[in-house]
Amino acid sequence: MSENKITYIKNENVKEKPASDQLSFGKYFTDHMFIQDYTPDKGWHNARIKPYEPLILDPAAIVFHYGQTVFEGLKAYRTEDNTIQLFRPDKNMERLNHSNDRLCIPQIDEEFAIDAIKQLVEIDQDWVPNAPGTSLYIRPFIISTEPYLGVAPSANYQFIVILSPVGAYYAEGINPVKIAVENQFVRAVKGGTGEAKTAGNYASSLKAQEQVASEGYAQVLWLDGVEKKYIEEVGSMNVFFKVNGEVITPELNGSILEGVTRNSVIELLKSWDIPVTERKITMQELNDHYEKGELEEAFGSGTAAVISPVGELAWEGKKMVINNGDTGEIAKRLYDVLTGIQYGKENDPFDWLVKVK
Amino acid sequence: MSENKITYIKNENVKEKPASDQLSFGKYFTDHMFIQDYTPDKGWHNARIKPYEPLILDPAAIVFHYGQTVFEGLKAYRTEDNTIQLFRPDKNMERLNHSNDRLCIPQIDEEFAIDAIKQLVEIDQDWVPNAPGTSLYIRPFIISTEPYLGVAPSANYQFIVILSPVGAYYAEGINPVKIAVENQFVRAVKGGTGEAKTAGNYASSLKAQEQVASEGYAQVLWLDGVEKKYIEEVGSMNVFFKVNGEVITPELNGSILEGVTRNSVIELLKSWDIPVTERKITMQELNDHYEKGELEEAFGSGTAAVISPVGELAWEGKKMVINNGDTGEIAKRLYDVLTGIQYGKENDPFDWLVKVK
Ligand SMILES: Cc1ncc(COP(=O)(O)O)c(C=O)c1O
Ligand SMILES: Cc1ncc(COP(=O)(O)O)c(C=O)c1O
Repeated sequence: MSENKITYIKNENVKEKPASDQLSFGKYFTDHMFIQDYTPDKGWHNARIKPYEPLILDPAAIVFHYGQTVFEGLKAYRTEDNTIQLFRPDKNMERLNHSNDRLCIPQIDEEFAIDAIKQLVEIDQDWVPNAPGTSLYIRPFIISTEPYLGVAPSANYQFIVILSPVGAYYAEGINPVKIAVENQFVRAVKGGTGEAKTAGNYASSLKAQEQVASEGYAQVLWLDGVEKKYIEEVGSMNVFFKVNGEVITPELNGSILEGVTRNSVIELLKSWDIPVTERKITMQELNDHYEKGELEEAFGSGTAAVISPVGELAWEGKKMVINNGDTGEIAKRLYDVLTGIQYGKENDPFDWLVKVK
Repeated sequence: MSENKITYIKNENVKEKPASDQLSFGKYFTDHMFIQDYTPDKGWHNARIKPYEPLILDPAAIVFHYGQTVFEGLKAYRTEDNTIQLFRPDKNMERLNHSNDRLCIPQIDEEFAIDAIKQLVEIDQDWVPNAPGTSLYIRPFIISTEPYLGVAPSANYQFIVILSPVGAYYAEGINPVKIAVENQFVRAVKGGTGEAKTAGNYASSLKAQEQVASEGYAQVLWLDGVEKKYIEEVGSMNVFFKVNGEVITPELNGSILEGVTRNSVIELLKSWDIPVTERKITMQELNDHYEKGELEEAFGSGTAAVISPVGELAWEGKKMVINNGDTGEIAKRLYDVLTGIQYGKENDPFDWLVKVK
């Protein structure tokens, strides 16, 4: 399994690349993909990098019916000296296996997977854009392929990695967003699949997202599914609040996704001697701090945006304007340092980067 | 949209059919499938019945990543005079649209879909088995096909129907199963997707199912995700309890799937003047009735098994043996009458059947 042999079938028919300043998110895909099969007798085998092309799947494949699937998201960055580097891919592969466990999908070899990603990105390195803030988004995912309509874990799987050049999240510099607290829909609950990165959590979120978007909000802030009191996370980001000089983020509780960016933010804050606490926090408590003028900053953390300041939070008909709707000091510093590390402009004191070539 | 035009491409390469007594569930598929496309400009279009064959999908198709998909399950039965008939297909198409709404998938034309199913089953009518208790399982499903990694509803979809001849659920007559109450995992929660028939609910259930199976239980009994007190449903069945002569089933609360069989059971019981109540019921209450000798029967209801008596219920280390582990009187009567109606041996006083030909 861990013998590092990947067959390479070159794409002789490469696509035209979109201009670096015309990229959005997840719309364009590169010339190659990685794919590996799983069968009960052979385990994971037949690793190959081949032309990006459609999957051919039986209509009864379990993934279509029972959603037995997991995924990851990370990025490759191009530095000024044209190094291409990944940010903490070990964390993503660790989380992928954590998700696999919840979804009854066989474990992958994490080191081998990182190596496969490196080889794939190297082959498609010309697709890593160079305009400021752009990057190559990497989407590893595993799907269940057995054609069987019984509700049971699949016998067979495919582990696939596709690549997508993505634009700068903030076209005009880091900019606060408006977020609405979700009171009706629930994304995940303890005992469910919230801490796994799996399709169903996102399917469940579409309707809430659609509703708040129509009211002018960028994303929803999810509350816990049990009491609808405790703050969990934002759409596809974890969330942080600065209250009286202390940075607070909801503790991992089984229904929150453990973000790689979240973990990196905590490490950085600690290294800066800024107090940071992982604990339960209710919307009511947050509101009380806000009323007393103690809510100094709010921001999300995630691979796509890195840091996303929250300028306005809507809750039960009330609009909480945070830091006058401007980017806070800590959010700005985290954004600058994290992107600085990712693009090789800053030191990498934690050894977070993995060079592709 | 509702002009009833379905292109037919005949499969010239038909498969050999498995023997009627060697069928299990969801393993064999017939010679043809129905498929229809959705695009924002054309709506649902290009309805066709064509040879059963693999789907060809971009690896970035939304269904693989965010699970935007819904499905249904119903059956076609062969009667003694070789009529082929569907059981309440209108209910399934109504529920499909209900699921569509929750998953931000465009509504389908229910009547047209029933017609498509009838045409497909008629074409593959030789696949409807005739051994006692066998039937043709019909699986309509909709998948999101747009290649896009943003978390948003897909622009494009495919509505597909596949058919699978299935064996008798009870090879040796109706037989009670052992069920374990699930205390750790949660299938669905109010505000989530529990009342929709969508992949994520089933993905979430795999791990719990695997655990109880290893302890000798057929399925899990799900409790509510909030308080883990209230009884919801069993794996892929709704659940009923007979207590002191009254039949009780958990009321629809937003996280329980509204079963077609559940609805049919309630109608039948009412027509027989047997008291039937839809209400909240906790495991504690059920246990109290059990202790007092008042729990007379327990059974599940679903398309696959029709009625599945529960002979043993495991809860917090305790084993509740119900009706001495035998099939109860009401479960037996419901099973006989429902299957009698489905196979055309009994009158159909509620007009539940739709003839295929
Ligand atoms: C639900 C959810 N929470 C949090 C995150 C942030 O995780 P990470 O920092 O690893 O990107 C993501 C996305 O990646 C997510 O989908
Ligand atoms: C979760 C769940 N509950 C209940 C049912 C029973 O519904 P129906 O009677 O329509 O088959 C099913 C299966 O069909 C199911 O998947």
